[in-house]
Amino acid sequence: MKLVLVHTVREVRDFQESKNNIGLVPTMGALHAGHVRLMEIARRESDVLAVSIFVNPLQFGPNEDYSRYPRTLSHDLEICERNNVDLVFAPSVEEMYPLPQLTSVEVGRLSEHLCGKVRPGHFRAVATVVMKLLNIIQPQRAYFGEKDIQQLTIIRRMVADLNLNVTIVGVPIVRETDGLALSSRNKYLSAEERKVAPALYRALQEAVNRIRAGEKDASKVREAALEVLANFPLIRVEYFEIVDPEELQPLATISAPVRIAGAIWLGATRLIDNVNA
Amino acid sequence: MKLVLVHTVREVRDFQESKNNIGLVPTMGALHAGHVRLMEIARRESDVLAVSIFVNPLQFGPNEDYSRYPRTLSHDLEICERNNVDLVFAPSVEEMYPLPQLTSVEVGRLSEHLCGKVRPGHFRAVATVVMKLLNIIQPQRAYFGEKDIQQLTIIRRMVADLNLNVTIVGVPIVRETDGLALSSRNKYLSAEERKVAPALYRALQEAVNRIRAGEKDASKVREAALEVLANFPLIRVEYFEIVDPEELQPLATISAPVRIAGAIWLGATRLIDNVNA
Repeated sequence: MKLVLVHTVREVRDFQESKNNIGLVPTMGALHAGHVRLMEIARRESDVLAVSIFVNPLQFGPNEDYSRYPRTLSHDLEICERNNVDLVFAPSVEEMYPLPQLTSVEVGRLSEHLCGKVRPGHFRAVATVVMKLLNIIQPQRAYFGEKDIQQLTIIRRMVADLNLNVTIVGVPIVRETDGLALSSRNKYLSAEERKVAPALYRALQEAVNRIRAGEKDASKVREAALEVLANFPLIRVEYFEIVDPEELQPLATISAPVRIAGAIWLGATRLIDNVNA
Repeated sequence: MKLVLVHTVREVRDFQESKNNIGLVPTMGALHAGHVRLMEIARRESDVLAVSIFVNPLQFGPNEDYSRYPRTLSHDLEICERNNVDLVFAPSVEEMYPLPQLTSVEVGRLSEHLCGKVRPGHFRAVATVVMKLLNIIQPQRAYFGEKDIQQLTIIRRMVADLNLNVTIVGVPIVRETDGLALSSRNKYLSAEERKVAPALYRALQEAVNRIRAGEKDASKVREAALEVLANFPLIRVEYFEIVDPEELQPLATISAPVRIAGAIWLGATRLIDNVNA
């Protein structure tokens, strides 16, 4: 099957002659090896592999990086070709929001902590646009990276709560050799910031080590991890939390498997990462 | 095709071998001739006619009539049989809400006036449960009565805003010979209240007559209609508004086709009705 590039919902509908076994990788473009991993897994499991590329203005706050977010469509299309993608859906903002968007999808509780606390309205806009993309593409499976673990958790719950007939597949984080989680935003980093950036992953590993060594007190684990980050004056910590893996609610005591999640700023760039322990 | 009654989402999915040309009539049961009209129209247009019967607890306020809302499943099934329904989906509350429902669908602006003003959270719960039913049944078309015009307007907008691949069909109100709009809640009325109930429709007609006679001032049209209702001490008016037909926003001046909508109380029973003009 040759790659088809379409820009309108109508074209996607026309494409859907057989609705069987479509896998969707929703992206904001600026594709990197993390996205390629999603495509590889989706390709193996799907007759039709669809990728959406849409930088959703509604999920960016007024002081966030919507306007400078990297847009690299021709490069993205090469990556899609190389990975045997069947359909790329790259709509305009007007195609996605032809009317004022009065309808929103809200996932309570799960949206309130971690990134949700510092990005009000972000996850409502993410849930809403993912709902739109799922309804447009109508895939059997949609693939999301675990780097955005809160997004993944929220979308899983949205799908369950609203009985969407789609399977959400979470795919482990792809990292640089020095541990930095791949992200389109890594492009923003200066050479100096890039050198320091893997400290977030090292702090997460420090937390894992403390837990493996038997520490049950989440605040002590957190302190040990924050000490790792404190060595780097360039780094400002936004949050660092030990949370339950189902609903990502902060824990005081560690008595079962946990997720550890952190967000840091390096200059004007915000990086997030997480691990299981 | 013989009628199939199922109670779980899983069974509905198993039923959907061919996804083609399903028409859905979502109801809360207590089926009457208004529902039958929906079924008749859906039957003509659909290979598979599905009816859902679910009294959704989340759309009732704490002081509303959830517990006494009429439940008449065996009678409803007879009506479905007689109207050649293929599938009835009659889930339990636990089947519809197996987890705490964290996710909700909100349609802004359209939910704020008329019934939305006096029933906070009602339309959020309606939009959410209709979204669930559409995802479970996956119909090509879903049929709603125009009596609940605000519900219909909100669902149309939800479908557009979230790119749902379903056509929403609005079906004109079915009335008793004296003009009373059919409603499952008409059962609540005492003989005395039932006699007075058609006054709501007569007030709507009075408003239509004033508009046809050239009156452009919405407040004057409203006053004339309220005078009709003032003749009946049993009636308490909740709202009576002249609104635009697209978004149901109140109008001061009538310069294009309008919708006129009213809600009254007769004892403990709330009745709504509306007409075009």
